[in-house]
Amino acid sequence: MSKQVLVLPGDGIGPEIVEQAVRVLDAVNASFNLDIEHSSALVGGSAYDETGSPLPEETLTKAKAADAILLGAVGGPKWDGLDMSVRPEKGLLGLRSNLELFANLRPAILYPQLADASSLKPEIVAGLDILIVRELTGGIYFGQPRGIRTLENGEREGFNTYVYSESEIRRIARSAFEAARQRGKRVCSIDKSNVLEVTVLWKEVMEEVAKEYPDVELSHMLVDNAAMQLVRAPKQFDVMVTGNMFGDILSDAAAMLTGSIGMLPSASLNAEGRGMYEPCHGSAPDIAGKGIANPLATILSVAMMLRYSLDAKDAADAIEKAVSDVLDQGLRTADIASQGSKPVSTSQMGDAVLAAL
Amino acid sequence: MSKQVLVLPGDGIGPEIVEQAVRVLDAVNASFNLDIEHSSALVGGSAYDETGSPLPEETLTKAKAADAILLGAVGGPKWDGLDMSVRPEKGLLGLRSNLELFANLRPAILYPQLADASSLKPEIVAGLDILIVRELTGGIYFGQPRGIRTLENGEREGFNTYVYSESEIRRIARSAFEAARQRGKRVCSIDKSNVLEVTVLWKEVMEEVAKEYPDVELSHMLVDNAAMQLVRAPKQFDVMVTGNMFGDILSDAAAMLTGSIGMLPSASLNAEGRGMYEPCHGSAPDIAGKGIANPLATILSVAMMLRYSLDAKDAADAIEKAVSDVLDQGLRTADIASQGSKPVSTSQMGDAVLAAL
Ligand SMILES: CC(C)[C@H](C(=O)O)[C@@H](O)C(=O)O
Ligand SMILES: CC(C)[C@H](C(=O)O)[C@@H](O)C(=O)O
Repeated sequence: MSKQVLVLPGDGIGPEIVEQAVRVLDAVNASFNLDIEHSSALVGGSAYDETGSPLPEETLTKAKAADAILLGAVGGPKWDGLDMSVRPEKGLLGLRSNLELFANLRPAILYPQLADASSLKPEIVAGLDILIVRELTGGIYFGQPRGIRTLENGEREGFNTYVYSESEIRRIARSAFEAARQRGKRVCSIDKSNVLEVTVLWKEVMEEVAKEYPDVELSHMLVDNAAMQLVRAPKQFDVMVTGNMFGDILSDAAAMLTGSIGMLPSASLNAEGRGMYEPCHGSAPDIAGKGIANPLATILSVAMMLRYSLDAKDAADAIEKAVSDVLDQGLRTADIASQGSKPVSTSQMGDAVLAAL
Repeated sequence: MSKQVLVLPGDGIGPEIVEQAVRVLDAVNASFNLDIEHSSALVGGSAYDETGSPLPEETLTKAKAADAILLGAVGGPKWDGLDMSVRPEKGLLGLRSNLELFANLRPAILYPQLADASSLKPEIVAGLDILIVRELTGGIYFGQPRGIRTLENGEREGFNTYVYSESEIRRIARSAFEAARQRGKRVCSIDKSNVLEVTVLWKEVMEEVAKEYPDVELSHMLVDNAAMQLVRAPKQFDVMVTGNMFGDILSDAAAMLTGSIGMLPSASLNAEGRGMYEPCHGSAPDIAGKGIANPLATILSVAMMLRYSLDAKDAADAIEKAVSDVLDQGLRTADIASQGSKPVSTSQMGDAVLAAL
């Protein structure tokens, strides 16, 4: 039976980069005989503009039926004034939550060809290969109660709730330990257990789950120290596991260490391994429509999708090899180009990957 | 009338570094005729060991009566197993909260003499001089309700509350705008207003307060992007203002960018400008008692204290000049020494600053 992929281009540079990624998907689909079908739907700001909702019912239905989802990016200043409940980000958060995509895997890898692009000194960052496992459907992103209320003295107060249950922590812990088993066999759990009770429970459950994985080493680090250590000596980490909010902050910092955030894919998986795949970067509204965005993170997201959700390891390998080849050839979009060199466009980069396949 | 300084050595390397800082305070007190008296008290883990409380009543009473407080650092693995309510950190948090030290000023400065110590490439970080203004007595650190409870299905759940009222946001906003007025006249407010309602209010109040400061430019940035931008191009910032939790994470990352976190002082001020002064770094239990910790951040905290709370600008200038002189002389403790060079001890560094005064 054919596999169904739902393509959600989204906003900003989303449609441009997804277009190239879909060309690559089509190519491996044909050459590896994968029997993949894809259709697309609206999400985010573009969905709001068309339908009044950032996550139309039709999109959610299609997403639930799909074997995998490929997403571009959502959001932009155009929708900044909107009420939180209909903002583009709500489309993304709604997908994560409705599909229970609780395990967000964000690799931060330094591509040797791009060593120069990092802000960090080569000796600090050469060979960097860490994986951030971020809990994606709980924590303060979804905690209740939340809102803005008026106090008795007439002033307003904003409030959100940072909450995790044992079972939520347990399942993300297992994702992290499983991932570590395939890599360096070390998990560092990030918390703020000297101040926040919710992370005291987090730390406790991590210890408990660690007993199921005697071959994997568990350590703990406070989030402020983790932010420091990522700058000071990022190579000390193998897998980092943390909650939704800390993961948002640390994974962006980690990705930026490599200087090639335009290169980094991510996977958001549910308990059955079905998932949504998207670049780590955002919708970059400042360069949208200019045809200069880097499509490689999205193309590599297709590779991750083939590997994790579509059982097509060979096709995934082929894409990753093709991306490495175009880097070897010296092709660079503007975000990763070194000063003075002439960058290629989004579609030229897509062409090159197709040619290298 | 004489000015009262309360000295709180705390835990780990705290006593060692504070000892050197007090020698420096004594020296300028004599040479500038400042009429400062100081006494000391227990806080943190050492207070807990002695009295059963990390913030004994006597310490709090003395702290309230003092014109300024000099703190070393608190905490360490020795007390990790303790209940949250009596952990060393509770001593620090109790001081902040009881004295209403809501404005935490954390400079991240690259000392030209230490340019090599940074993980970042020189062109990214040379000349870095940013100030993080962190709200210190509210947010998720102090929000209620909080705790760990058992759900109906028998599993436990941890929860904390991230909350800010308009007046809390307004006063920290003013601290940031006032500070920016003395510097580059730019404030960047950090929030997560695409997800958290409490930070939607934060952003709104920042805009409102900005109207009182037409000479200062206000911009906004999402916290995940801020973490990225600190790594990518930290010099774009002048003053960053943010809440307690984001400020904890971002200020540690920012300090580490300079490679000299052992050099950075901080001030925590209340509405009357009275304050507590401490190094940005922690209690470093791994090197405690070895006599190798860097006392300069604490010595520079004395300078900040003289300037902001004790009306002794000349003495502050003299200390800062002396510190710069010892760096020029090439003296380095282990944390800032370049590979191969021989580091000086904590007390040798103190001696050198005294000699340079
Ligand atoms: C767009 C936004 C809601 C989202 C998040 O905060 O999770 C993004 O920053 C991310 O990391 O995927
Ligand atoms: C020790 C701890 C409670 C404290 C904090 O989180 O505020 C520390 O990290 C700091 O930044 O001063």
